[in-house]
Amino acid sequence: MAKGKKTPRPKAIPPKGFRDYFGAEVAERKSMLDKIAAVYHRYGFDALESSAVETVEALGKFLPDVDRPNEGVFAWQEDEDWLALRYDMTAPLARVYAQHQNDLPKPYRRFAMGPVWRNEKPGPGRFRQFYQCDADTVGTGSVAADAEICMMLADALEAVGIERGDYMIRVNNRKVLNGVLEVAGLPEEAARERGIVLRAIDKLDRLGPDGVRALLGAGRKDESGDFTDGAELSEAQAETIMSFMDALRDDTAATVARLGEIVGDNATGAEGVAELSQIADLMGAQGYGPDRVVIDPSVVRGLGYYTGPVFEAELTFETVDEKGRPRQFGSVAGGGRYDDLVKRFTGQAVPATGISIGVDRLLAALRAKGRLEGESEGPVVVTVMDRDRMGEYQAMASELRASGIRAEVYLGNPKNFGNQMKYADKRGSKVAIIQGSDEAERGVVQLKDLVLGAKIAETATHEEWKDQPAQFEVPRADLVAQVRMILER
Amino acid sequence: MAKGKKTPRPKAIPPKGFRDYFGAEVAERKSMLDKIAAVYHRYGFDALESSAVETVEALGKFLPDVDRPNEGVFAWQEDEDWLALRYDMTAPLARVYAQHQNDLPKPYRRFAMGPVWRNEKPGPGRFRQFYQCDADTVGTGSVAADAEICMMLADALEAVGIERGDYMIRVNNRKVLNGVLEVAGLPEEAARERGIVLRAIDKLDRLGPDGVRALLGAGRKDESGDFTDGAELSEAQAETIMSFMDALRDDTAATVARLGEIVGDNATGAEGVAELSQIADLMGAQGYGPDRVVIDPSVVRGLGYYTGPVFEAELTFETVDEKGRPRQFGSVAGGGRYDDLVKRFTGQAVPATGISIGVDRLLAALRAKGRLEGESEGPVVVTVMDRDRMGEYQAMASELRASGIRAEVYLGNPKNFGNQMKYADKRGSKVAIIQGSDEAERGVVQLKDLVLGAKIAETATHEEWKDQPAQFEVPRADLVAQVRMILER
Repeated sequence: MAKGKKTPRPKAIPPKGFRDYFGAEVAERKSMLDKIAAVYHRYGFDALESSAVETVEALGKFLPDVDRPNEGVFAWQEDEDWLALRYDMTAPLARVYAQHQNDLPKPYRRFAMGPVWRNEKPGPGRFRQFYQCDADTVGTGSVAADAEICMMLADALEAVGIERGDYMIRVNNRKVLNGVLEVAGLPEEAARERGIVLRAIDKLDRLGPDGVRALLGAGRKDESGDFTDGAELSEAQAETIMSFMDALRDDTAATVARLGEIVGDNATGAEGVAELSQIADLMGAQGYGPDRVVIDPSVVRGLGYYTGPVFEAELTFETVDEKGRPRQFGSVAGGGRYDDLVKRFTGQAVPATGISIGVDRLLAALRAKGRLEGESEGPVVVTVMDRDRMGEYQAMASELRASGIRAEVYLGNPKNFGNQMKYADKRGSKVAIIQGSDEAERGVVQLKDLVLGAKIAETATHEEWKDQPAQFEVPRADLVAQVRMILER
Repeated sequence: MAKGKKTPRPKAIPPKGFRDYFGAEVAERKSMLDKIAAVYHRYGFDALESSAVETVEALGKFLPDVDRPNEGVFAWQEDEDWLALRYDMTAPLARVYAQHQNDLPKPYRRFAMGPVWRNEKPGPGRFRQFYQCDADTVGTGSVAADAEICMMLADALEAVGIERGDYMIRVNNRKVLNGVLEVAGLPEEAARERGIVLRAIDKLDRLGPDGVRALLGAGRKDESGDFTDGAELSEAQAETIMSFMDALRDDTAATVARLGEIVGDNATGAEGVAELSQIADLMGAQGYGPDRVVIDPSVVRGLGYYTGPVFEAELTFETVDEKGRPRQFGSVAGGGRYDDLVKRFTGQAVPATGISIGVDRLLAALRAKGRLEGESEGPVVVTVMDRDRMGEYQAMASELRASGIRAEVYLGNPKNFGNQMKYADKRGSKVAIIQGSDEAERGVVQLKDLVLGAKIAETATHEEWKDQPAQFEVPRADLVAQVRMILER
């Protein structure tokens, strides 16, 4: 009774956390990235498309255990090496810059757009492959580079359709925080306290000022009852640090003055304040004023990671989600200065500054604003009434295409005309073309206005549609002109 | 005397067989693919960007040994599954079509462009990550779909800059070969002989007719002395098969007639000949005649893989390589019909036909023809003579950009002016802008024409350059107009 072993059929699904992008989704993202790339290019940034695969060594992810490559990356072994998919665009930039230092212009302005991969637990809307869009300037410590990045980011946001007034770029500076830490009596040597303070500050958005304050002091118990140790700072120390995050004033000069008061004569802090002031001046000189870019000490995200200026672009408008609830998009880009990009490779510190745009988040915001461009229009569908006249149907599609109109011939089984109409509907077509042998003999074609047809179907009793029939006959010679007329309705 | 353990520095290189693409390389490829995508889109094809990672199961690569994933793919284990990078665009299309069959239009026309990965031994010019550019129509057996793919391919080649007369699309049909095999007395059951014959035919390009003939007969010894067993066909059997590959005549009708003679009343063969004839007719009706597309039974590559029509696009022009030797590009695209795309997943045979363009080869051909478009122009470089006037230098760059001119401020250490000029040179700049405090006071800028400057440097003694100084002063207000004048020279 034993049957031959059957190989079970493979499951037709991508791995968990991966997805496919169809038609309009691809076109919309491409259109957005093309506009951003054009801005970056005009600023003198060059495209870089680095290898998607790197050695784990070059990525800087270390393997705690040979059998279990570091979580966070997709990695596999090849002979002696471990290879991995890049998890961001910065680690490959560091490798590329270290490798090609002698051939690249200095400073090197580059942008990179493409997928990155994270070996993380997927969740709703959280994928393990997603796009990043980065621009960085490597090899200069000049704050002019930071100012340039912020202005370019503003231009990029406006280029894709985020209007002035609908976004704000906020700039802060890690050096000011370092100065504040010193003023508060926490020198570099107080590594433990500094670590707690930095992590606490990074959580300001989530925990609020009271939560941060608790972490600066005795510690904090969260909702689940877990206790996080605090930095055990005195009231005065904590006050100094809180005052930094609370230093935003009505205008840039006042904010800078307030930060100056807080850091006093501390050299690091004063340097940071001077940098912020210079960045504001440089941008102001090009017309990038406080309606678009502000110095804002409440920007704390990434302060623990970056070494100088820190940037964040926030969308300030509100939309309504599908359930009518107000929805804010928040931060769509972030970045800053990091001064040890290639040190791991060369031993030499190379200053760099850059920005990363959250591609999916910006796309979602543009979608909500109705600002997406891409493939909105379905092709004109030429139906097949008579299989033997395929050449003539293809000629119609050819003529339409030659005039720049997207068009295709129905290539399924033509027997059931209803299926052809269903197909046209699925393709989002505005026009279907019909020519049976009778029409062919008379040298005419039927044009079916599918948009109008749908409206008539909805409001079939209305007298007003009488004069606008959804299907009408035109001379074959007028095909292109008449189709164009319907498309332009 | 023991020192602390030092982690050795990571090597700044990508894994073997991987590379990076810089500036113009990225822009040129993008420009070419954008043009192809526009043609595909106009034909009604939709973009599909599938996940780069698939389960090994879905890719159809089987694991002979758990410790050694199938060669050819980059694979790694995740819990019970093996995941892998896609090695082409067809296997993911099959998975996507099987998964989304109910939501996709039928037939489904889609194109896909992007990197694929092959775990193969890298060699000169042979990389383990490279681009593919595919278009396929899934869900129709109509030869109109095959004709459409060929016409679209012709349009795509012309859109990127391969002129009519510089390419030829050749079409053959596996069914004709099947008929020929039957006529030669090799029915499907003669699997061993058919296998040898198919492999031999596929090698026609490399072995020539004599080599193929040897394999059809007793076998063949290659240069290294290795012997390949032959199909042991009789002289007459071999002659029938050779006559198929040799059936090309002066015009399509004659070729079709000749093929008809060879297959006689064999049903499969006659069906294949009829398909070729229909394809030629459909294309001829749209003006795609033998100056662009021919029925050519000598096209044998892929005949072993495809099930119906087979296409190949060949570049017919010759160029000269850097050593002055003639260079031919040969095939830049290939494809055909394959009728069991999704059977592995669903058990159901779904007909499909498609084409794949060899992205790197087509790029090389366009480069040789001088037809590449992309980022040819370096940015205008605004030099920094006076660090305190950075705002004014950035304003100059801003103004140029606002008029659509690519421009950047030098952001390296400005102390050494020679370095700034070297930088402009490395950037491929045509113009450098110089404004010291003296010029600033007088409201002027110096423009340096770097192209002219290079020419003057070469031919410094020529009197004729006297009236065209490579550096000249213009009013600050005329900056943009004067730069544009130089760029348009």
